[in-house]
Amino acid sequence: MLVLSRSGGSLIAAFAALSLMAGPVQAHEEVVEESLSTEYLSARLLKVADGFTHPWAVALLPDGRKLVTQRPGGVYLIDNGDKTRLEGAPEVHATNQGGMLDIVVHPEYGDNGWVYMTYSKGDADGTVPALARAKLDGGSLVDFEELFESNTATEPGRHYGSRILFLEDGTLLMTIGDRGAHPPRAQDTMDHSGTIVRLNYDGSVPDDNPFVDREGYAPEIYTYGHRNIQGIALRSDTGEVWVTEHGPRGGDELNLIEPGQNYGWPVATLGRDYRTEGDFPDAETRQHDDMADPVFEFLPTLAPSGLAIVNGEHFPHWEGNLLAGGLRAERVLRLSVETGEVLHAEELLHGTVGRIRDVRQGPDGYIYILNDAEDGALYRLEPGG
Amino acid sequence: MLVLSRSGGSLIAAFAALSLMAGPVQAHEEVVEESLSTEYLSARLLKVADGFTHPWAVALLPDGRKLVTQRPGGVYLIDNGDKTRLEGAPEVHATNQGGMLDIVVHPEYGDNGWVYMTYSKGDADGTVPALARAKLDGGSLVDFEELFESNTATEPGRHYGSRILFLEDGTLLMTIGDRGAHPPRAQDTMDHSGTIVRLNYDGSVPDDNPFVDREGYAPEIYTYGHRNIQGIALRSDTGEVWVTEHGPRGGDELNLIEPGQNYGWPVATLGRDYRTEGDFPDAETRQHDDMADPVFEFLPTLAPSGLAIVNGEHFPHWEGNLLAGGLRAERVLRLSVETGEVLHAEELLHGTVGRIRDVRQGPDGYIYILNDAEDGALYRLEPGG
Repeated sequence: MLVLSRSGGSLIAAFAALSLMAGPVQAHEEVVEESLSTEYLSARLLKVADGFTHPWAVALLPDGRKLVTQRPGGVYLIDNGDKTRLEGAPEVHATNQGGMLDIVVHPEYGDNGWVYMTYSKGDADGTVPALARAKLDGGSLVDFEELFESNTATEPGRHYGSRILFLEDGTLLMTIGDRGAHPPRAQDTMDHSGTIVRLNYDGSVPDDNPFVDREGYAPEIYTYGHRNIQGIALRSDTGEVWVTEHGPRGGDELNLIEPGQNYGWPVATLGRDYRTEGDFPDAETRQHDDMADPVFEFLPTLAPSGLAIVNGEHFPHWEGNLLAGGLRAERVLRLSVETGEVLHAEELLHGTVGRIRDVRQGPDGYIYILNDAEDGALYRLEPGG
Repeated sequence: MLVLSRSGGSLIAAFAALSLMAGPVQAHEEVVEESLSTEYLSARLLKVADGFTHPWAVALLPDGRKLVTQRPGGVYLIDNGDKTRLEGAPEVHATNQGGMLDIVVHPEYGDNGWVYMTYSKGDADGTVPALARAKLDGGSLVDFEELFESNTATEPGRHYGSRILFLEDGTLLMTIGDRGAHPPRAQDTMDHSGTIVRLNYDGSVPDDNPFVDREGYAPEIYTYGHRNIQGIALRSDTGEVWVTEHGPRGGDELNLIEPGQNYGWPVATLGRDYRTEGDFPDAETRQHDDMADPVFEFLPTLAPSGLAIVNGEHFPHWEGNLLAGGLRAERVLRLSVETGEVLHAEELLHGTVGRIRDVRQGPDGYIYILNDAEDGALYRLEPGG
């Protein structure tokens, strides 16, 4: 085709250069795709570990070990070919979307050894998304501390959000889904449901939170009007916080997070509630002057999960790009975002590993991916192949 | 999953009702997919005829016969299980994207018997997109008349456009690609390249064309600033003309056509030219105040081909929806468009028949699809199964 013949030369040169970057395949690893062709590079997909029941999140330790949560409960430590289910993981109430959820390594892990995690806590009468931290000691999580829990319990099963993001100012963000509650609560500024909360590392409220002194607002709230954010990432060169958010039928959103903003749900939405048969919301409900519009709507539906933002030497043509995992769409979307707009998108891994649950960049610069399956696995995407 | 359990009852009822609409499979037809699950209905995909070399367009005759063009040359008549290569098809210059292109039945075919077609005409030194009409007489096209050709010949191979659409006012539209010419010509209002032209049925210029009396404008031009439109359809309830247009890398557009408008290429574009390595166009080139913005950008790339707009009893939940075929994306996108926005999108046929070249609704209300392949085929999509 014409396109290939015009750009073929430089692509081949790029392949040759990048293929040097792929390391040897370890004995415990399995090559899933030797040569995935993408717009800028050839990539290799490896299976690093498997046998997880609906894995939800992967945390990458600086020394190359990995931690994987699985939604029905449990945290696994992956050390090369060895996989250990850790003692001391929290008890979770695992129903439908609830269970053991996110896990992230503290940015100063080398000094303090903290690992942060979220999960659904409670019983059949009501659950809350909760945040805790613990340290890794051999095959155990020790010094476990609960730091925060949402202030409203809801019938288990729906919209926990629960991603954690460390900012560079000594605080962290935690996303909290709207819990699918009726009447809806994401516009209730005293309720943590449907928000992002910002906390100090010990779970206390930062003095400079946007609503910390405002009557009628829970002081932990950083932004509100969210439905269910399951992807959050920091763009290191700009400091921007990006999130991917599940809409109702249609209406999956990419949002740029600004403190104090109301993101509209369920007053302003691009999608339809599953409960309402038939018509789309009318124009009044798609936009609202006082509420932040999404930067991008995923059309068709992505059902967004983990989000990573690429940086570093391994993927030079993807620098600053968002990698948005999709559950229902069963792919990763690579999005090039500049001047507040999505300029370009490419589908990756469609038809390869099914529903994507998490996407992270490791300290080694490679991309780690979990698929959501009864027998799920951890994959690594690297240039070359 | 929760979604299915909430809406399952009504979906099952809908399936039951719609499954009555699928007719018996004819002896010469082959079921490709018995039960394609979509958001609103279960559909069946049948192969109606095969053995076409890169088929480009299908025309559906009122009596159930079909005409299929193939890009390297030739027009086939499909009459149930019989396939006849017609005598009297035009000579074409078939290089790369050029060759035998569109074919459409005149809206008063029953009275006048005219079939309209486009193709690339010329030689290795230069080709033009041309429009002709002929009548079907047994195994031949007779009374062949050339009606129009683009006023600028270009080195063969790129960006012919060449879709035909009959309007309801006694005129027709023909899309003409920019021919990939350098320097670019889509902003040259004397040049048919990169335009939609509007013609009377006999190829003459309608008196009420937007630029008919304007100095410096070719009188056939209806709109300009297009790169390469390969999908065009009329929404019968609103009279709107919709087109899908190939962008450069990224920048595939859905446009609503208003007479006299400049659609911006290559001054304003959402994509990048393949020639320019690296950066995206800066903000100044993505929008221009005097030029029409697209209604929607296909992200990721669709590489849009044939476009149909659904109406009628067979697909009640798709009424008024656009079905946009995709070459590179190898799928059909169903788009729900209201109040000037794409409100919802669904992928259809991904992974089923490969590159989609044409999508039409037949007089029988079913959807007809051609795939672009060395051994391409004609398919019918119908509810039920």
